[in-house]
Amino acid sequence: MQSESQTRGESGRLPAADLQDAWPALSDAERVEGFRLLDPEEAPDVFGELDAREQSALLLGFGRAERQIWMRQLPPDDAADLVQEAPEEWREELLSLLDEPTRKEVVALLAYAEDDAGGLMSPRYVRVRPDMRVDEAITYLRRQAQERVETIYYIYVQDAQQRLLGVVSFRELFAAPSDRLVRDVMSAEPVSVAEDLDQESVSQLFAQHDFVAMPVVDAEGRMKGIITVDDIVDVVQEEATEDIQKLGGTAALDAPYLDVGFLELVRKRGVWLSVLFLGELMTASAMAHYEDELARALILALFIPLVISSGGNSGSQASTLVIRAIAIGEVRLRDWWRVLRREIAMGLVLGGFLGTLGLVRILLWPGREEVYGPHYALLGVAVGVSLLGIVLWGAVAGAMLPFVLRRLGLDPATASAPFVATLVDVTGLMLYFNVASVVLRGTLL
Amino acid sequence: MQSESQTRGESGRLPAADLQDAWPALSDAERVEGFRLLDPEEAPDVFGELDAREQSALLLGFGRAERQIWMRQLPPDDAADLVQEAPEEWREELLSLLDEPTRKEVVALLAYAEDDAGGLMSPRYVRVRPDMRVDEAITYLRRQAQERVETIYYIYVQDAQQRLLGVVSFRELFAAPSDRLVRDVMSAEPVSVAEDLDQESVSQLFAQHDFVAMPVVDAEGRMKGIITVDDIVDVVQEEATEDIQKLGGTAALDAPYLDVGFLELVRKRGVWLSVLFLGELMTASAMAHYEDELARALILALFIPLVISSGGNSGSQASTLVIRAIAIGEVRLRDWWRVLRREIAMGLVLGGFLGTLGLVRILLWPGREEVYGPHYALLGVAVGVSLLGIVLWGAVAGAMLPFVLRRLGLDPATASAPFVATLVDVTGLMLYFNVASVVLRGTLL
Repeated sequence: MQSESQTRGESGRLPAADLQDAWPALSDAERVEGFRLLDPEEAPDVFGELDAREQSALLLGFGRAERQIWMRQLPPDDAADLVQEAPEEWREELLSLLDEPTRKEVVALLAYAEDDAGGLMSPRYVRVRPDMRVDEAITYLRRQAQERVETIYYIYVQDAQQRLLGVVSFRELFAAPSDRLVRDVMSAEPVSVAEDLDQESVSQLFAQHDFVAMPVVDAEGRMKGIITVDDIVDVVQEEATEDIQKLGGTAALDAPYLDVGFLELVRKRGVWLSVLFLGELMTASAMAHYEDELARALILALFIPLVISSGGNSGSQASTLVIRAIAIGEVRLRDWWRVLRREIAMGLVLGGFLGTLGLVRILLWPGREEVYGPHYALLGVAVGVSLLGIVLWGAVAGAMLPFVLRRLGLDPATASAPFVATLVDVTGLMLYFNVASVVLRGTLL
Repeated sequence: MQSESQTRGESGRLPAADLQDAWPALSDAERVEGFRLLDPEEAPDVFGELDAREQSALLLGFGRAERQIWMRQLPPDDAADLVQEAPEEWREELLSLLDEPTRKEVVALLAYAEDDAGGLMSPRYVRVRPDMRVDEAITYLRRQAQERVETIYYIYVQDAQQRLLGVVSFRELFAAPSDRLVRDVMSAEPVSVAEDLDQESVSQLFAQHDFVAMPVVDAEGRMKGIITVDDIVDVVQEEATEDIQKLGGTAALDAPYLDVGFLELVRKRGVWLSVLFLGELMTASAMAHYEDELARALILALFIPLVISSGGNSGSQASTLVIRAIAIGEVRLRDWWRVLRREIAMGLVLGGFLGTLGLVRILLWPGREEVYGPHYALLGVAVGVSLLGIVLWGAVAGAMLPFVLRRLGLDPATASAPFVATLVDVTGLMLYFNVASVVLRGTLL
């Protein structure tokens, strides 16, 4: 009786908004508990708005009967995502909860890599034959619309071998005279995506064409499913998040910051941090190499952080801009020469400006002779020239590194701000000491 | 005659794909020229796929008649975007090219800020009254579908005062029995967005709900238009690009990298670079303050770049992760305490690891006594402890700064990797020298 009152009673219900608000702070067990307290009218919406990872964790907290109810709420593409998020040993169990035709669809979808076009698509779309009349097609669609299909916005015209012949929007079909043939109102040769296209390229196609849905075809031109634009919003968000995390010098987290396990986060940050540390260790060796110069002109040490960090900042700007421009298709591999020319000019202007600032700072500093010694003007020149050189070098290295990585088949986003800064630090030290030994020869050095 | 052969002849036509391929490298004048060489069948598609900035530049290169043809191709929301991208002095002229009803719609849209919900919406949606029968509504829609409407996927139910009562998807309406009333098949109280909601929040609603379109209402609940998800893909892309550029230490470019004018790019990078430079100047002052220690133990200088850059890298990781988590709504202001605890633990683990690496590197380095002197072990301890402290400090400062900025009403993305690195550099130097003077007192110092 108690369970009945919990299911049907009006009191003790948790408003959906309250649960959604508290959600990020709840443990898995609390989420299961909270979800069961929802109004049964609201629960399906709340469930539908969770991402695949959260749905999967929730289901594993349920008993088998409850698990089956919710598993069967999902369209095949979402069910496939959920199964993919579940631990290996649970996948068979979850699949067995589906009815037979859906299970087959989901298993077919699981064959695709998660971030390929095939992994994003739904096999439930509406299709007609080219030789149907418009009014026949509408009647036929009306029947299909009552089943579970992803969208009836676009209708795909196929031959008997499932080859995609054309597409007609529902609106066009609806506005066409009843006795025309479908083949006469459809657009032939529609834009389609290959089933193994990666999701980043798929999202660029959507951004470019403003489609609501796109058909997915295999190598023989047979239609396998559709991708709808609402899934693309998530893809674009996800890809940007991955790029941002890499740009910050971390491996992509693949989960919300607060949900990633502590040890996994340690690993994802620690690996890059250690690599960068090993790179930075070379600065200690480089400095040791210039120890004699330092001993004679200790004053040089004062400007080391200023000089190398300015190069790092300039490199961080250039690499970030170029990486993003490559990611969204604004800049292509063959544009490297235009980018290089631009960054050389940019580095000269910005470096010239910072170099002048550095020079002026030393020339006009109150008590410059006491702090920097009698040769403060030459020191200023050495710092200024080094700044010019290192800002230029940062801009050029930061801008070219993403091209080199892409050319090697690696992810340009690996050229993160910290990575470029480390690269520039080592070379920047060498530049600084060499410039100083030329400018200050015979005076300080 | 020549112009006729250029317009109608089959030869001399430029394939659309070739033009689109060359597009980024072309000047405005070349784009106009290339566009005119397109097959008239292909030109409208090419035009439609340009962004508002490119469409605007193209139109300004046309004569008035040609300009009018293309201006009238655009639905009102796209026309409003185009006008917004055009130089101030051109806007009246462009508006005058539209037919009167469209001009009124566009002027109404221009009243909204470009990145508010109102600036994204289209006023052309399909609407029905609640007391229509399903079959009446379908017939009525069939008439509306022949006019220019953005989508017929969702149908909005309004009372006589344009107040939004409910929504019904076309598919639901289509699948419903003919003699039901619209009010009985519609979903009441649909999710809607306020006309002045910012576009980042709008895109989060779309990402959360998987809608294809959402209605926009004013403060009185009157419906003003709809936002469709295909425009949201662009918004998500755009917002991520802005955040990425800020994270790299540049002002947001608001245009493709290769299209931004050189001087504008100098300004957008130079301002931040100078601010960071002024911050870094404090490192020179900090170093001057420790000149005595340096003179006595020059060896300390060798590890300065290593120590401060490790803090910068750790800070860059933490700030990037937290900024992105805040931007996509995974972490909220009130989660600061959970994030702080997490980053303290993270900083201790990562800092402990790097500190140990640094210590081991010095203890085991071949020829350590010659390079680092007899007290190399103590030096190793000083470097190791400093690394622990600075990596911890980087993680905590990097993670908390975005919260502080958001709390002050500023953009968290301002806490860019270079910004955090600069902050950590100055404090890191102080930490390093203070740790060293404690550890090495009586030996080197």
